[in-house]
Amino acid sequence: MISFDYSTKVYYKDIDQMGVVYYTRYLEYFEAARTELLKSIGVVVTDIENEGFFLPVISAHCDYKQGAKFEDEIIVRTCIRELPRARMKIEYEVVKNDAVLAIGYTLHGFTDHQGKAKRPPKSFQQVMQKYF
Amino acid sequence: MISFDYSTKVYYKDIDQMGVVYYTRYLEYFEAARTELLKSIGVVVTDIENEGFFLPVISAHCDYKQGAKFEDEIIVRTCIRELPRARMKIEYEVVKNDAVLAIGYTLHGFTDHQGKAKRPPKSFQQVMQKYF
Amino acid sequence: MISFDYSTKVYYKDIDQMGVVYYTRYLEYFEAARTELLKSIGVVVTDIENEGFFLPVISAHCDYKQGAKFEDEIIVRTCIRELPRARMKIEYEVVKNDAVLAIGYTLHGFTDHQGKAKRPPKSFQQVMQKYF
Amino acid sequence: MISFDYSTKVYYKDIDQMGVVYYTRYLEYFEAARTELLKSIGVVVTDIENEGFFLPVISAHCDYKQGAKFEDEIIVRTCIRELPRARMKIEYEVVKNDAVLAIGYTLHGFTDHQGKAKRPPKSFQQVMQKYF
Repeated sequence: MISFDYSTKVYYKDIDQMGVVYYTRYLEYFEAARTELLKSIGVVVTDIENEGFFLPVISAHCDYKQGAKFEDEIIVRTCIRELPRARMKIEYEVVKNDAVLAIGYTLHGFTDHQGKAKRPPKSFQQVMQKYF
Repeated sequence: MISFDYSTKVYYKDIDQMGVVYYTRYLEYFEAARTELLKSIGVVVTDIENEGFFLPVISAHCDYKQGAKFEDEIIVRTCIRELPRARMKIEYEVVKNDAVLAIGYTLHGFTDHQGKAKRPPKSFQQVMQKYF
Repeated sequence: MISFDYSTKVYYKDIDQMGVVYYTRYLEYFEAARTELLKSIGVVVTDIENEGFFLPVISAHCDYKQGAKFEDEIIVRTCIRELPRARMKIEYEVVKNDAVLAIGYTLHGFTDHQGKAKRPPKSFQQVMQKYF
Repeated sequence: MISFDYSTKVYYKDIDQMGVVYYTRYLEYFEAARTELLKSIGVVVTDIENEGFFLPVISAHCDYKQGAKFEDEIIVRTCIRELPRARMKIEYEVVKNDAVLAIGYTLHGFTDHQGKAKRPPKSFQQVMQKYF
């Protein structure tokens, strides 16, 4: 398993008129969190793209428990539980202090820059295998 | 069943460096689509809020098939298949010409303005019952 | 002069906890409005990009008078007052009924896809000259 | 003068198909930067709002020099050069290493929660006077 805690802070741009983070913005936090999770094991998304790959999202899901507020410090607990093969599943839990605000996942594929499905790059597979 | 086709157009702000709509923006299109679906049957979200209710998203899901591009005209086919009771499920299909680009749903609850769960407003239930 | 009225509607995603449109989102409406202004005279931004050009924003400005609210129908009155040469200035006025909500402008340059400044494409200049 | 360096990182959500940060997102970085500048001198925006005030943006301006890219680490150098009275001007310079990417400012007023112009709160004025 690979896990990473991504810390961020909530700003006005993400708050709606209910006074809480608008529902799609948690998925933006997820993106930052997974970028940092991958970087923490030496996988830089920009490098993967420069090698001719994209990692598009195939599915995204989020369950909302409690709303984050303006100026809240939140943590996105991010993890990969299974060795990614053709697809990579990443899971997220957004927490504030001890409260869980949202839980979700994204499922990713690998494609070339024309959008055609590809196997993950070798370098990526080699890094991943160390963790499973 | 209640259904509504919401038409919109893709602008630069939603396109990422893969050249397609960034994954969270489909969920923003969903929001516009469900607002218009509800309005099409006489339910104005602003009115519901003014009566003391909120309709927060409890769960959101999206499966991505094909990316929408800048200046694409897309339709979000939106529907409610079951009479909403404590919760309301809304389903979405994003199409361009005959291609399905994304499929998703959102699940909503009703709360007061302090976030406490409430039964849906009577006026809302009365309108809904006409369709099921 | 070239002018175009772009109509749009305000959704939840753009409303902040003051209950009005968040300040950067007017500049997103500007982008949609200028895309449609250009299209109205036969200039399709996607085509310009496919010919090897980009139209990056060099400067952006907005003065805020009154906040647009959720479900407001607004019009972005958009115009180009002077023949674009190396740079193109586009002006915007966001109105709701007779009230002016925001006034702004963007200044654009032309570059190739590596970001190097270029003269506008010939086809673009020819279209523009008809209007000035 | 009050100044603060706000560090942030660029993620996919803010990158457009030119491969650089979309122009409105710099103004979102500005918002985070000014929130942290104010916090650095003990002024918490949430507290100001809880005292019955809002700080809406009256004008916003940005000049774009060079585009920030995905995974870039950037700094938003933020400062207030003059004692805020009825209005507060905040200036921003977005830098990456030694390159200046964007320069801008925002002008803010103080209102009550109904949007009526007000003098800044006393506590705010007292803090500010220490710096000028």
